[in-house]
Amino acid sequence: MRYCAQPERRLGYREVNRAIEAIFREHGEGRVQMPPKVYITFPKGDFRTMPAYLPALDIAGVKIVNVHPENREHGLPTVMALMILIDPESGVPRAVLNATSLTDMRTGAAGAVAAKYLSPKREVSVGVIGSGRQAEAQVRALADVRRITGIRIWSREEKNAGAMASRFPDYDAGVAGLERACDADVVITTTPSREPLVEDEWIHEGTHINAIGADAPGKEELDPRILLRARVFVDDMVQAVHSGEVNVPISRGLFSPDQIAGTLGEVVIGKKRRERPEEITVFDSTGLAIQDLAIARLALEGAEWIELPFP
Amino acid sequence: MRYCAQPERRLGYREVNRAIEAIFREHGEGRVQMPPKVYITFPKGDFRTMPAYLPALDIAGVKIVNVHPENREHGLPTVMALMILIDPESGVPRAVLNATSLTDMRTGAAGAVAAKYLSPKREVSVGVIGSGRQAEAQVRALADVRRITGIRIWSREEKNAGAMASRFPDYDAGVAGLERACDADVVITTTPSREPLVEDEWIHEGTHINAIGADAPGKEELDPRILLRARVFVDDMVQAVHSGEVNVPISRGLFSPDQIAGTLGEVVIGKKRRERPEEITVFDSTGLAIQDLAIARLALEGAEWIELPFP
Repeated sequence: MRYCAQPERRLGYREVNRAIEAIFREHGEGRVQMPPKVYITFPKGDFRTMPAYLPALDIAGVKIVNVHPENREHGLPTVMALMILIDPESGVPRAVLNATSLTDMRTGAAGAVAAKYLSPKREVSVGVIGSGRQAEAQVRALADVRRITGIRIWSREEKNAGAMASRFPDYDAGVAGLERACDADVVITTTPSREPLVEDEWIHEGTHINAIGADAPGKEELDPRILLRARVFVDDMVQAVHSGEVNVPISRGLFSPDQIAGTLGEVVIGKKRRERPEEITVFDSTGLAIQDLAIARLALEGAEWIELPFP
Repeated sequence: MRYCAQPERRLGYREVNRAIEAIFREHGEGRVQMPPKVYITFPKGDFRTMPAYLPALDIAGVKIVNVHPENREHGLPTVMALMILIDPESGVPRAVLNATSLTDMRTGAAGAVAAKYLSPKREVSVGVIGSGRQAEAQVRALADVRRITGIRIWSREEKNAGAMASRFPDYDAGVAGLERACDADVVITTTPSREPLVEDEWIHEGTHINAIGADAPGKEELDPRILLRARVFVDDMVQAVHSGEVNVPISRGLFSPDQIAGTLGEVVIGKKRRERPEEITVFDSTGLAIQDLAIARLALEGAEWIELPFP
């Protein structure tokens, strides 16, 4: 059994995006085992257990990931993750990986796959709501599938938006107000908001939105009227209805699961698609255990490891 | 973060039994978070993911455990387990433990706690059905709570029963037929059987049975008529109905969840009990994630470890 402390070190988005696209294809074809995430709640946070099995790729495993919003005050990441890979043939645990950065990357890659299929333009202006690790991962992954003409970043703390912009020196990247950031070909929302930040009238025709932030019941970032105007795709029906961008509008009767156009997997296999260039598309990402499996397997190929005695 | 390859090395059943009794008390008081086990199935086996949180002991984590019956042909254990301990305060993974032997021990300890409260005698003859790792663990754990006057072991392969008997040189231990093994004060069943092995008429008044083998739908070891004569306790209602000794009789309409007398936790806190010395009691063990948490925490105290960089 191996332990990899920095499995992300040699990974690039080119290969990660490809691996993530491949597993969304498996998901679209219904060839995965992925039970719902299991939540354990603590006074100051929670952790989620995410088992899955991809028969076609012969990989199985479990991701364990916490969310502790107060961690930053103590110099710790809010979200940390560990991935365990299991050999389907024998059940032996093959590897334990620090999956904190892998989680960022596989989520960024899902956004990139969504934009590749759903954003109608090859060259795109990008608006980013939020300026944390996931905001950066989304833009870096997107840069592999679209030529980015400019990046406008909004953050509740303007200095954080500026800091993120400075990490993209090769782009026309800068700080913007919320409305200005939403005037873009690809809008990416990555906040932990529990009320809509993005107003309906700010989103123009032809925009593709990657709605990343909402990943638990009660979270939302978009005015629900955007969902009613848009063609809405999700990563997984059960997870999205439970905890994705659509969860609050559905629980309030403002939106219905029937109004979801399909899954990203169905888009990748060509079963569902954007119908017209001028329509708005939304990808509601909650994060799938199969994404974690795919990136962990990929990372393991080139990573340095510590050998651990087992059994 | 630590990795412990042999966390069981310094553990004795005295302390393990105490720790397991303490967490059954927590379970009886309803002070645990323990979602149902999640199963992933492979062509040749499965793996189960078992998250839990014990607020009173301030421990949380996940056990990942496989069952691959064909592994023995390849020199690998059928069951292997890994335990991840999470800090409830911050969500940081504190330790990864090889939990294969811990799984045996915590299951043995549950049987010992059941016998401590439910077997009416201080000195007991013991009948063991099956001769694998769990059979041995059950007897060793029991020896901490009862004086054992003799051990009669039945196995489908008689030489395996003999080999187990030879590992108990300090006891009157020997091989026996099925019926003879069942003529005991404490009967322990530890096989993967999918049909009853123990006949109703072999079990005499006052016997306590630890029914350990059945831990998945379709498995059973006891004639269902024994359950109808006995006072039946389970480790956890949901898990036992799904996959314990009672699962097949319930699914066939021969036994009802209403006929379960209570949980071991309720016995430990004094809410439920054996009513009369002559009645038969059954403890139906499926194995709880909180048992894994408790023994992992205990093992961590004295174990050698490898320090792993995280995050």
